[in-house]
Amino acid sequence: MSTRVRASLFQGPEMSGDVACNLDAIEHAATRSAEAGSAVLVTPEMSATGYDIGDLVHERAESSDGPIFLAVSEIARRVGVAVVYGYPERAGGRVYNSVQVVDASGTSIARYRKTHLFGDLDRGRFLPGEELVVQFELGGIVCGLLTCYDVEFPETVRAHADAGTQWLVVPTGLMVPFDIVATHIVPARAYESQVFVTYVNRCGRERDLQYCGSTCAIAPDGTELGRAGRGEATLTVDIDPAALDSSRAINTHLDDRRRDLYTPRTG
Amino acid sequence: MSTRVRASLFQGPEMSGDVACNLDAIEHAATRSAEAGSAVLVTPEMSATGYDIGDLVHERAESSDGPIFLAVSEIARRVGVAVVYGYPERAGGRVYNSVQVVDASGTSIARYRKTHLFGDLDRGRFLPGEELVVQFELGGIVCGLLTCYDVEFPETVRAHADAGTQWLVVPTGLMVPFDIVATHIVPARAYESQVFVTYVNRCGRERDLQYCGSTCAIAPDGTELGRAGRGEATLTVDIDPAALDSSRAINTHLDDRRRDLYTPRTG
Repeated sequence: MSTRVRASLFQGPEMSGDVACNLDAIEHAATRSAEAGSAVLVTPEMSATGYDIGDLVHERAESSDGPIFLAVSEIARRVGVAVVYGYPERAGGRVYNSVQVVDASGTSIARYRKTHLFGDLDRGRFLPGEELVVQFELGGIVCGLLTCYDVEFPETVRAHADAGTQWLVVPTGLMVPFDIVATHIVPARAYESQVFVTYVNRCGRERDLQYCGSTCAIAPDGTELGRAGRGEATLTVDIDPAALDSSRAINTHLDDRRRDLYTPRTG
Repeated sequence: MSTRVRASLFQGPEMSGDVACNLDAIEHAATRSAEAGSAVLVTPEMSATGYDIGDLVHERAESSDGPIFLAVSEIARRVGVAVVYGYPERAGGRVYNSVQVVDASGTSIARYRKTHLFGDLDRGRFLPGEELVVQFELGGIVCGLLTCYDVEFPETVRAHADAGTQWLVVPTGLMVPFDIVATHIVPARAYESQVFVTYVNRCGRERDLQYCGSTCAIAPDGTELGRAGRGEATLTVDIDPAALDSSRAINTHLDDRRRDLYTPRTG
């Protein structure tokens, strides 16, 4: 039986510093999330390390059970909220643009490696993940993970919807001038595939990038549950599975596909 | 060699009447289109007959070379603009929700039968088309046809982009409360699949339906080239193939798909 889940979406910090600074920001956000009654805190892409930080990405890369994980796990356990965070993951000689979900007991419950790499910013530093659909559960709701550019491809959200995902959690690092992704693409994804989407962006500047902010939560019927501006902000939203059921009863897109007519998608 | 093509998008008439009234409205719109220097006039779904008109749909249904075609052909030839119009098409014992394109010489150059039927409004009256990608050419630009609900499915626009469509022409009959389709889904389609989309809606009321208006033209980079309000209106927009090339150089979504990861789509 699924129930309503409250989520805090942290668009920050405005100034990305060293790992200790970023972990401090995550800790403060987690504490505020608990005070707001949230079950989960979602933070942006590469929230633990910074994103457009050049060679520091590789210096700060670590395994999924490394010091960053241990620190976030301790934060989650102590304040009693699940935490979604981003970091560069080292696995063997490879580095991925990864997201990890730690539950309120401090246990890792999901790990996702970005599958659609964006431009030189990603391709110069990361290998792509090879597993598209990674899911976890919060309060009985089936959640899924995508990262930034991934969600610009309707196929990714379709794959999640077909696998039973009800709520897509999307840490991102969207920069100017691509605001259309936050304002139009994300609502389209929620509506066309009938899922909740929480899209949690960075803000401020890093080197040459100005991030868009515009973190948002969209219900399956297209309703905007919350939207941040450009600067540091935290949104608190309730994800209600009853709203999913009532939207899917009206918006029957998943059932109305003409899959017999779509070109078979071969590599 | 493709060149810039000017299009007039006619959101009307406000009061849908009998076929003669609707053909009069198309004729007036065609004349104004020619005066504006447009090469093509696009009109809404079922523009020749009315859409939510109950059993009249079947009474007014005719073959693709019937009296409605002959009248539109004569208008197109006389004013010297191509015309895209919608009508119920009778073929054998079957009726389809169809769109036809007549060039400026009065010749039929494309016919499309709506493949994704919407609710009882369509399913109670029409059979679905079985050909998804129908194309034609205007000024060297590869154009494609979709109707209303079709465009809510990202797979349809992907199929067009993969088949070389550069400009999707979409007559529609979008009603309240589904404004999100005009305001968010259509721009998302243009951007994610890197095509121009002209979405031409009905306005006013028919029986229980209040149409949304909000006819729009969206460039591949997401730029809104024009948008109508709720009432009768004509937009004049220029579709520039150079803007397609420059957008696709930056927005590389079509190339960046991870088709190796998407579930094969079998019936």
